This record gives sequence, C-alpha cells and structure tokens, in this order.
Amino acid sequence: MTDRVYNFSAGPAVLPVPVLEEAQKNLLSLPGVGMSVLESSHRSPHFTEIIETAESNLRKLLKVPEGHRVLFLQGGASFQFSMIAINYLRGTGKPADYILTGSWGKKAIKEAKREGEVNTIWDGADGNYNRVPKQEELNLSPDAAYVHYTSNETIQGVEFSTEPEVGEVPLVCDASSDILSRPLDLSTYDLLYGGAQKNMGPSGVALVIISERLLDRVPTEIHSMLDYRLLAENHSLYNTPPTFGIYLMMLVGKWLLEEIGGLEEMYRINQQKAGLLYDLIDGSGGFYRGHAEPESRSNMNVTWTLQSEDLEKEFLAEAKNLGLCELKGHRSVGGIRASIYNAMPLEGVTALRDFMETFKKSH
Amino acid sequence: MTDRVYNFSAGPAVLPVPVLEEAQKNLLSLPGVGMSVLESSHRSPHFTEIIETAESNLRKLLKVPEGHRVLFLQGGASFQFSMIAINYLRGTGKPADYILTGSWGKKAIKEAKREGEVNTIWDGADGNYNRVPKQEELNLSPDAAYVHYTSNETIQGVEFSTEPEVGEVPLVCDASSDILSRPLDLSTYDLLYGGAQKNMGPSGVALVIISERLLDRVPTEIHSMLDYRLLAENHSLYNTPPTFGIYLMMLVGKWLLEEIGGLEEMYRINQQKAGLLYDLIDGSGGFYRGHAEPESRSNMNVTWTLQSEDLEKEFLAEAKNLGLCELKGHRSVGGIRASIYNAMPLEGVTALRDFMETFKKSH
Repeated sequence: MTDRVYNFSAGPAVLPVPVLEEAQKNLLSLPGVGMSVLESSHRSPHFTEIIETAESNLRKLLKVPEGHRVLFLQGGASFQFSMIAINYLRGTGKPADYILTGSWGKKAIKEAKREGEVNTIWDGADGNYNRVPKQEELNLSPDAAYVHYTSNETIQGVEFSTEPEVGEVPLVCDASSDILSRPLDLSTYDLLYGGAQKNMGPSGVALVIISERLLDRVPTEIHSMLDYRLLAENHSLYNTPPTFGIYLMMLVGKWLLEEIGGLEEMYRINQQKAGLLYDLIDGSGGFYRGHAEPESRSNMNVTWTLQSEDLEKEFLAEAKNLGLCELKGHRSVGGIRASIYNAMPLEGVTALRDFMETFKKSH
Repeated sequence: MTDRVYNFSAGPAVLPVPVLEEAQKNLLSLPGVGMSVLESSHRSPHFTEIIETAESNLRKLLKVPEGHRVLFLQGGASFQFSMIAINYLRGTGKPADYILTGSWGKKAIKEAKREGEVNTIWDGADGNYNRVPKQEELNLSPDAAYVHYTSNETIQGVEFSTEPEVGEVPLVCDASSDILSRPLDLSTYDLLYGGAQKNMGPSGVALVIISERLLDRVPTEIHSMLDYRLLAENHSLYNTPPTFGIYLMMLVGKWLLEEIGGLEEMYRINQQKAGLLYDLIDGSGGFYRGHAEPESRSNMNVTWTLQSEDLEKEFLAEAKNLGLCELKGHRSVGGIRASIYNAMPLEGVTALRDFMETFKKSH
C-alpha cells in the first residue's frame, strides 16, 4: 500500500482500495468456485449472481424505477453517442435537442448529426464552456425526439446541479463523469448512460439505464449489437459481456452501500472534497484561477490555470514529486485538472490543497 | 492453487496461471507506477508501453505484415459481424461470400444481410455442421466484396485445417476460438478478428488485424466507433479502450513467447491434447460418439454425445465431482463439449481422458 500515489486521473481513474483488495484476493479463484471470475462463463451460476448483484446495487443507489432496464454494454459512452441517434433520431422526422456544455457534448452531437436534425439549443462556446445554462436559457423544441445533455463535462469541469426540465420529451443524459457521485432519481430520465471508468469501475463497460417507453421505440430493422431492446431482453448477455468490469462494478456498488453508506453520504464527502480546492482557489488572490463559474463548478473535475504555462509545468513537476499525479489539464483546455471522483480519499485532496498553499507561498 | 478446478468452459475460458499470478501481484500497484493498471489513464506512459507490447507480441506470434494494423476494440466478435458488413458490403453493389460451418457463421450472416447481398457459398446444414468444406466445394463469386469464414466453430467443434483459397478477393476470418492455437501467416488475410475470451485474455476485448487495402476502403460517412480507419489512425485510443483486457492480452502473449516458446510449440501441445480425447472417443466402440468428422475435428472444442441424455447427465455430474467442470455441450447442440484452449494444461486433459475411460468401464 505504501507505494500508491494519489492519482487524480480523469479516467480510467482511482478505484476504492477495498475493491482492489477483494479483486486481488480472489483473482485466481472465487471462493468456492475454483476458477477466476476472468475465466468464468457469463452463463455460469456464479457470474449470474455477480451481474444480478451489480444491477440490484445500482437500483438501490440510483432509485431506478421498476420499468427501467439496467444494461451493461461495451464501447463506452462514445458508442452510446451513435446508438442513441440510430435508435431514436433516425427516421423519426423529428429534431433532437442537444445542450452543449463542453467537449463530450460536442462529440455526441457529431455522431447524432449523421442520423437527423440536431438542434443545439444552448452552446457554451461564448464563455469557453465555463458554465451550464439556466433553465430559462433553453429553447426546447416541443416536438423533439429527445433532449440530450452532459451532466458533468470532464474536460471543462462544469456540472449541472440539477436536471434540465424538459416536460414530456425524453431526457437523455451522459453521466459518465458524475454518476454515483450524488443521489439521483432515475424516474426523471428516459436514458442515462456512462462509461464505468470514472466512478463505477474499470474501462470497457458502459452502464445504460433506459425506460420502457424508449425500449418500445427501438426500430425493427437494426443491427443486433445496436438494438437496446434485444440487449435488454437478453439481460446484457446477448453476446459475452465484459465480465470482469461488471464484477468490479458490483464491488464498487457494495462499497458505496456498505462502507460509504449510500449516495447522500457520498455526496456530502464529495462536496467537502471539492470545497477544499475551490476555497483555496477563491482565496488565492488570483494566483490560481478557476475555469468554471462558481454556480457551475464540478464536484468531480476541478480545473484551474496559473499565471503562465511555465509556472504550470513547475507546479506539475513538484506535485508529482510529492506523489500527486495526473494533474495536467486536458490538452484541449490546458492548465491543471484535479479529478476527485468518489474513490479519491479526503486525504488525497487535503494533500493537494496543502501543496497548493505551499507552492503559492514559494512562488 | 489447490482449490482450482479444471475449467473446460468454451469462453470466457481458462487463463494461464502465470498470467493470473502476475496480474494478481500487481493489482494494487504496477511496479514503479504507484497505481493499478485498472486505474491508469490510457494515455499514460506505462499504459502506452503495455499496449505497444501487446501489439508487438501479437505481431511476432502471428507474422503480421508491416502494413496490416492491429486493433484492440470492444463489442466482441458479434460487433465485428456488423462492422465488417457496414464497412465493406454496404453500398458496394457486390455480394459477399459466406462459408457457413456452424452457429457463429449463422450469426455473422444475419448481420451482413442487413447491408447487402450475401451468398452462402457453402452450408453445412445437411450434415448438422459436422465438417468444413473442401476447396472444390466452394462456389466463390469472382466479384465478391469479400469471403467470410469461421476458422473454428466453438459450438459444433469443427475447424479448418488451412485457409480457403480465394484469389484476389479479401479473406475475412472470425478466428475467435482458435487464434493463437497454431502458426498463421497473416499476409493471407485481409481481416482476421476474434473475441479475446478464449485464447487471448478476458472478455471485453476484440482483436482485429486488418490490411491496408481494406483500411483504404472504409466509406467516408460512418459513425466514429464503426470506422476502422479512424480507430487505426488513433492506435485503438479513439476513445478509452478496455485497458485491463489489453494488459492481460499482453501477459498472455508474453507467456506464449517466453514460457511456451511460440505457436509451433503451442500447436504441437494442442494436437497432443486433442489427440488424447479423439483417440479415446474413436476407441470407445461407440460409447462416445464424436460430432465432427475426423478431418474437420477441432483442436480447441471437442464435442461428443453418449447413448442417452440421462447418461450424459450422469457423466457431467460425476465429472464435476472430480473437479472437471463446464463440460456440458451448448444448448443448441447438446451432448458434451470439452474446450481445451491453450491455457488448459495437459494434466487437465489427461484427467478428463482417465475419467472417460473409468466412466465407460462402469457403464
């Protein structure tokens, strides 16, 4: 344990140590099974128990309505950008509304445009994507096929504090980088999705939670691996799923339920962690400059700049020497980014905060 | 170790113990890195080294020509069924030739038919898919977009001993269940693909090896996650890849190169293992009846029946008591199936053979 650094990577990201320890202990043989989960048939009784527990953990944590289906898919959020448009925009003759708050929203729009009319109903480009819109700024199309938004933009560090209100139109959300960070009520969403590699597990699994009414709208002619209904009917086992990723997601859910105590408590801790950094930035007299406007600040990805790129390089080098790693901002934005997902312990954030204070004093 | 069974699962399947042991040892922290591979950015220097080594191992093992690209994708072979047809059949006005030797070929054809004309140029249905065709039985279309075949049918247990000859038409092969089991010369193939979960690693990664001339034929309008050229240009990092699966593939390649000594030696061992079971079946006087015709027998999946389903149930129950697990045939074929991939040790096959002899004597 002593050789572990504090890993502020935006994803794949830090995982809870108890999760890694349990996976490590059983990596050659699950107790009473005699083989690794890595070697287990996805139709074996013990894997069935794993995937069912992974689902029931998520249903408890996220208040998933009974009629919504929980799917474990491949291809990450990027593949969902296409699957959503192919299933729900193609051939409808309706537009889809997209709220654009950063880099991931842009990628979602790029794929959707291949399938039909996309209305970018709000675009944060003017402010270099430093905030999310207010409800009254949204020009919703009453006949939209769906409204799509990105609850947290990993690269810019802006986050919706609550869902946009969209009436009867299906709400579709890319929650890759803040899912499980706070309580949600899934009855608000028709489709919530996210790659696992930030708050849920390793890369290679995408979670999709989808409503009955959207499942009913899947077109009849569609490739099997793009067909939400077929995948749901087969309980994510139409073909071989990423079994090890689902196993880790099961362990992460268990950790949230049993060791953290649920998402209310996780949210409290996440606010505390983010508050430590934002307070320091706000009190730094301009030495550190936050990218996001205060009311749009992300609890997951804290982004800021220093006065010069040279100073930022020095900051990153000194941080790394102290075991504070992966703090470089995304190449498209620059500056510094601290990703402080669920599994980043308070001690890691405190260590970063203390370093930032020291660095400021010495520069 | 003592609690491990012999796992004859068709996939996800047994992995080499040294691979599992190394992954276990480093699961909380890669040496000198301070974080788990599960937590590592796909753009970090240490993951770059992992994916580059995974590729160079495969290039050595499979004699991959320089111009061919090696891709690590998601969605399994099932997603490739669609990707191949969307990239290379859609809009060409040409037919695609499919050789149908079992269940997986049937699934590949189902997806391809969505995109254009499919000629099933040979269909093993008459013999209940108990053999592969001879070269002279193939009615190749001279103008085909490509020829597709399944080198080993996991469910039926039939395997091509060599590639069909297709002239200048691109040869596309689903090698999911026999890749890395014997030497191949990749210059014969324009596209060779397979899910990792049989001979290469865990589920959740698909290997695609693709020629330059096919990369040049990717249509311009295509969803990013379906675009072989885009995925190749980004070295499998267009979006976050399944990092842990690629890490295990790297370790499996290392095991084949360093501990086994390459694919010639692996092939010798695989023939020896399969020979033990087929010899016993042939000498059992009809007590065990092999499904595949001798010249089409698979070295990976050995399939047979007993005189009655009741006897098969008894066989499976007694085998399980001895730690010989996952021997039930696929529900679509019935009987018994022993999957004896690279990582199944000779001792496991010998134990199964000995049990089969004893069971025959006592029944």
